[in-house]
Amino acid sequence: MRQEVDLRHGCRKDALRHDPTTETRLPNPRTPPTDAPKLRTIAMPADANPSGDIFGGWLMGLMDLAAGNAAGRRGRGRVATIAVEGMKFHMPVLVGDEVSIYAEVVSVGRTSMRIEVEAWRRERSEEEMCLVTEGVFTFVAIDENRKPRPVPPL
Amino acid sequence: MRQEVDLRHGCRKDALRHDPTTETRLPNPRTPPTDAPKLRTIAMPADANPSGDIFGGWLMGLMDLAAGNAAGRRGRGRVATIAVEGMKFHMPVLVGDEVSIYAEVVSVGRTSMRIEVEAWRRERSEEEMCLVTEGVFTFVAIDENRKPRPVPPL
Amino acid sequence: MRQEVDLRHGCRKDALRHDPTTETRLPNPRTPPTDAPKLRTIAMPADANPSGDIFGGWLMGLMDLAAGNAAGRRGRGRVATIAVEGMKFHMPVLVGDEVSIYAEVVSVGRTSMRIEVEAWRRERSEEEMCLVTEGVFTFVAIDENRKPRPVPPL
Amino acid sequence: MRQEVDLRHGCRKDALRHDPTTETRLPNPRTPPTDAPKLRTIAMPADANPSGDIFGGWLMGLMDLAAGNAAGRRGRGRVATIAVEGMKFHMPVLVGDEVSIYAEVVSVGRTSMRIEVEAWRRERSEEEMCLVTEGVFTFVAIDENRKPRPVPPL
Amino acid sequence: MRQEVDLRHGCRKDALRHDPTTETRLPNPRTPPTDAPKLRTIAMPADANPSGDIFGGWLMGLMDLAAGNAAGRRGRGRVATIAVEGMKFHMPVLVGDEVSIYAEVVSVGRTSMRIEVEAWRRERSEEEMCLVTEGVFTFVAIDENRKPRPVPPL
Amino acid sequence: MRQEVDLRHGCRKDALRHDPTTETRLPNPRTPPTDAPKLRTIAMPADANPSGDIFGGWLMGLMDLAAGNAAGRRGRGRVATIAVEGMKFHMPVLVGDEVSIYAEVVSVGRTSMRIEVEAWRRERSEEEMCLVTEGVFTFVAIDENRKPRPVPPL
Repeated sequence: MRQEVDLRHGCRKDALRHDPTTETRLPNPRTPPTDAPKLRTIAMPADANPSGDIFGGWLMGLMDLAAGNAAGRRGRGRVATIAVEGMKFHMPVLVGDEVSIYAEVVSVGRTSMRIEVEAWRRERSEEEMCLVTEGVFTFVAIDENRKPRPVPPL
Repeated sequence: MRQEVDLRHGCRKDALRHDPTTETRLPNPRTPPTDAPKLRTIAMPADANPSGDIFGGWLMGLMDLAAGNAAGRRGRGRVATIAVEGMKFHMPVLVGDEVSIYAEVVSVGRTSMRIEVEAWRRERSEEEMCLVTEGVFTFVAIDENRKPRPVPPL
Repeated sequence: MRQEVDLRHGCRKDALRHDPTTETRLPNPRTPPTDAPKLRTIAMPADANPSGDIFGGWLMGLMDLAAGNAAGRRGRGRVATIAVEGMKFHMPVLVGDEVSIYAEVVSVGRTSMRIEVEAWRRERSEEEMCLVTEGVFTFVAIDENRKPRPVPPL
Repeated sequence: MRQEVDLRHGCRKDALRHDPTTETRLPNPRTPPTDAPKLRTIAMPADANPSGDIFGGWLMGLMDLAAGNAAGRRGRGRVATIAVEGMKFHMPVLVGDEVSIYAEVVSVGRTSMRIEVEAWRRERSEEEMCLVTEGVFTFVAIDENRKPRPVPPL
Repeated sequence: MRQEVDLRHGCRKDALRHDPTTETRLPNPRTPPTDAPKLRTIAMPADANPSGDIFGGWLMGLMDLAAGNAAGRRGRGRVATIAVEGMKFHMPVLVGDEVSIYAEVVSVGRTSMRIEVEAWRRERSEEEMCLVTEGVFTFVAIDENRKPRPVPPL
Repeated sequence: MRQEVDLRHGCRKDALRHDPTTETRLPNPRTPPTDAPKLRTIAMPADANPSGDIFGGWLMGLMDLAAGNAAGRRGRGRVATIAVEGMKFHMPVLVGDEVSIYAEVVSVGRTSMRIEVEAWRRERSEEEMCLVTEGVFTFVAIDENRKPRPVPPL
């Protein structure tokens, strides 16, 4: 699912939050997914935080919506978020960026699904995409009374 | 910070997502925080997901905003989310619920802060609050160029 | 409900709208409520007016929502705004401010309730809260057909 | 500014909130303004309260925006709300209604202006407009530093 | 429906997008409609695009809403957009502008209606309105099952 | 850019607005684009019109944003919508649908670009995408003063 393009130079210059004294690490020099994104949008001024950058919670909401899109398609019906783990923010999203959310169902239990989610940004007039956020979401398939129901076989 | 009220009966009946085949557990029978919430709002129809319940991403966004409120006050200036761990959703939020977000800075590094966040719901005409979501957020204090800066001493 | 903290110096410097030729007065040097706010939020760029300050109508909407929160809890059900009196705006709210709305049911008629509402702002990295807006809201308890119904006894 | 059309029958049937034990009165059988509205919009599902009717605070925000539109035109520049008096809600606004806000500067002080504001609803496929809300707003003309400035002569 | 006011000077200075090498033409020096607008609103910061001007799609959405307002009134019930032709953008809308949408049903088929729509802007403290956008919308009257239904006679 | 999948059966059953007395035609039985969408989102309750379906203006706004995304990337900088032609709505979008917007720059003038845009919907738990809307947008590349500037060569 990855292409062999080296993105290190372009994206590292934006990796503004690296600090050797904390656990924050530079993003792994990954290449962006080549499949179609589960969601893609433009970060607008209405999504900014008081400092003028894009509000982190907006990005988390978008990742949840993308994970739910993947989970609802695999689970063929209503689903609900029950857990999020390992969410990391590698660099900021700025107003005007194109934001693409990739989400893949990586394992399926009886009623639950684990979904790996990545958010990539592209500056509006550039070509390159940079990884901004990643995390693992767990969803459960639910019925009309919000009770867990089995995930149907493929 | 906790009062000795037993909330088990009222809230357990809403714990709709319990599933013994997954790692999701019933919420610990906690009592709600007694300090003032970092954020408090009413869940409106505009915040609903296509099934009519409140969209999980909306709640995550609110928790990030509350954590940032606590981090910005402790860090005396601009901060940015760098990680979220252990986020669990115990029960749904419904349209009309009052949602209170509690956030507490539990440890401070040189430039980063860990914040424990909980979301509690109260049905509009009831008295009891129930724990819906919890998670641990890490924020870093940043300067005007988005470079990490030391968290000032208390 | 008030603490004995003197807020005069800090908040008076922001009281930008004082004009001796109108009825607008400097805010009474009040101390902020010590109970938990009925609503608390962060003023975001999306809530700004064309001049960049927070839109007054956004604040009025928030005060109505907070008053309705108090009225719905006291009235144990659906309520509707029927009147607002004496609303005064003492100073502007700026993007990034924490805004806390306090609302208290001060009298109850057969079907109606009077609620005193105050909005206080706190700059994001400061400790002090300043009174920005106050007003008195009247709500009526209504049934499913929007007909007035008695407010239940306590 | 009024036409001689009798609206009593059509609108009185909607006057759902009348309660003889409170100060709420049936709307005076007024005719709608004949000048162009200062603002006009459609009440959308995103503007609803948890009961499904239009949120009163949304209407107050719209009235403040309309009053500011009139005040900014008369004051030829930046203005800010400083007071609201006598706001009454005569009947609910429903999703889908056309809402027209009329606002007229009724007196001008050295730096302040009083604006009478009315909100009228029209059901989407009907012809008749009904008065839903009215109030008196006071605005002050301010300069770039938010200091009061004289309202220019006509 | 037009008044004999010459708007050429004031609006031409804003006609920023004129380019003789494309099909874009200066707006015809029209005078604004004298009837009441179908919709009128203030362009807010939340409606801006990443460059800080008002997002063109916001204006298209408003024109569709205004056309639907005219179509729903003429069609006495539910309607749906089926086509838009000849939409031209003559000049930008800026944050703070008053935007008035005029819409007129110009022809009626068995189940469809053609509506001419114009958007005019007025800078907040000026008197003059300038034509910014125009287009022709086709709506169809539909029943509860979204099937076309005849437009009732006048 | 098209795959050879027959979508006629599934999508024709939704083609609710066909009316032989108008120019509206059944959608050509097209196959969906195989490249990644320029934008992709989930239609939420907050995007609904008063009838509960998705508001057409919301879709137009999304198409404009997608066209601007393609134009900004090709034009390497700021762009503005100047015209929209031939926009057709083939079927409604419902709350919960995934909406994918495809946009392709089909011709480039000195300062302007023509972009063909299509919107496709997929019901949340289904696999099939159906064409809902299409149109042709013209954008002009502009500089910081909103003056047309040449589109750079590829």
